[in-house]
Amino acid sequence: MRFTSEQRLDDAVLEREFTLGEIPGILWTPAAASAPAPLILLGHPGGLRQMYPRLVGRARHCAALGFAAATIELPGGGDRPRFAAAEQARADLRRAVRAGEPVDDEIVDRLVLPLVDQAVPEWRATLDALLALPGIGGPVGFAGGVIAIGVRLAVVEPRISAAVLFAGSYVPRVIVEEARQVTIPLLVLLQWDDEGNDRQQALDLFDAFGSEEKTLHANMGGHTGVPSHEGDAGDRFFVRHLT
Amino acid sequence: MRFTSEQRLDDAVLEREFTLGEIPGILWTPAAASAPAPLILLGHPGGLRQMYPRLVGRARHCAALGFAAATIELPGGGDRPRFAAAEQARADLRRAVRAGEPVDDEIVDRLVLPLVDQAVPEWRATLDALLALPGIGGPVGFAGGVIAIGVRLAVVEPRISAAVLFAGSYVPRVIVEEARQVTIPLLVLLQWDDEGNDRQQALDLFDAFGSEEKTLHANMGGHTGVPSHEGDAGDRFFVRHLT
Repeated sequence: MRFTSEQRLDDAVLEREFTLGEIPGILWTPAAASAPAPLILLGHPGGLRQMYPRLVGRARHCAALGFAAATIELPGGGDRPRFAAAEQARADLRRAVRAGEPVDDEIVDRLVLPLVDQAVPEWRATLDALLALPGIGGPVGFAGGVIAIGVRLAVVEPRISAAVLFAGSYVPRVIVEEARQVTIPLLVLLQWDDEGNDRQQALDLFDAFGSEEKTLHANMGGHTGVPSHEGDAGDRFFVRHLT
Repeated sequence: MRFTSEQRLDDAVLEREFTLGEIPGILWTPAAASAPAPLILLGHPGGLRQMYPRLVGRARHCAALGFAAATIELPGGGDRPRFAAAEQARADLRRAVRAGEPVDDEIVDRLVLPLVDQAVPEWRATLDALLALPGIGGPVGFAGGVIAIGVRLAVVEPRISAAVLFAGSYVPRVIVEEARQVTIPLLVLLQWDDEGNDRQQALDLFDAFGSEEKTLHANMGGHTGVPSHEGDAGDRFFVRHLT
């Protein structure tokens, strides 16, 4: 892990850009941290630059709680090399949606599974590097999308203790099956009136999670209209489970 | 409204039992209130004495926020005269459940609709009396069950500005239709693994509500296992909408 830039935000948060091999990422740490800070991994749908305003908002929330936060670019996102495995599937998906056709499971599998297969080891390598830094330690949470990545991480990465997942993307059936193996506490956010999202599939996924403690928060406001009070709810969820 | 007893709880809350005609009830007010306090009406499934521990817990939450809280006994609940209209329906419901048969809509209608028809005017008369007291004023919320009563109140009582509803009881189809007329902000609590509750019916009811701002919180823990963090979520919901 190599740090490439550093700046302070409002004297409260230290923001450092880094690269891990070819993967760019950002680490935010609370400026006033004393003990090793719990860490929230911030997932997103790809395109770190476009997602930055939302991510830095979440990171400020985390810092206010005394948590570090970090994110990395997805395979094929931002300036990373095109992710060939998913490009044809994305084109097929767009064609099906434009034609008003149902999206085949096979297209969803081709779109999402290669991404999960590559992104999850990248997140785990990032976690190795982050936890080796001074000032970061203790429990780890995952927050955000792509939900299939969050599910796989929750299954295979024992250092992740709790997750906030956004039910907002296509989910392969094999991931729904993997969800039965998830046992960590979960907060799942669903936009009830999200026309680009299959509500029943999201409810089925929530049902499938094996976690004894899982909570679904469904709200109005469309795909991007998650109400601001859910940010506070996510904060409280992580405070309950990571401190 | 006639007060029949008065006690202070921990110097923080004044608890007063009252009767309104034949209806017994309890009013809790914050001991330290300065301005007129917003008021939360606490619904419950009937049986004020058995429900008291949970209700006084909610009332303490309300008082800590500077809110008054009040509840009344349901028709047929506690020491009130048996509610003949629903007794036969309750027997028919129990028989169907014991026999593992589906519960006819007709039984649900006979069980719930007479209760709603009588309880809602009683709640409204109670609200008239409460708002005439010194120290109580401002916006009014409703929290609890029976959800059909909450739906009807939200439709017909313009003084109710926000509601927290427990999706945990049989809901007549006519009430689901009425839900489309509800426009106030709602927080709906659903116990996902409640075997005595029809989950799909609860989701359909949530979908039906006409409110632009509505949130569903689904949790594990069975019928009576609503997690304590939902008490905090309800507090924050009412603080957002009543202050």
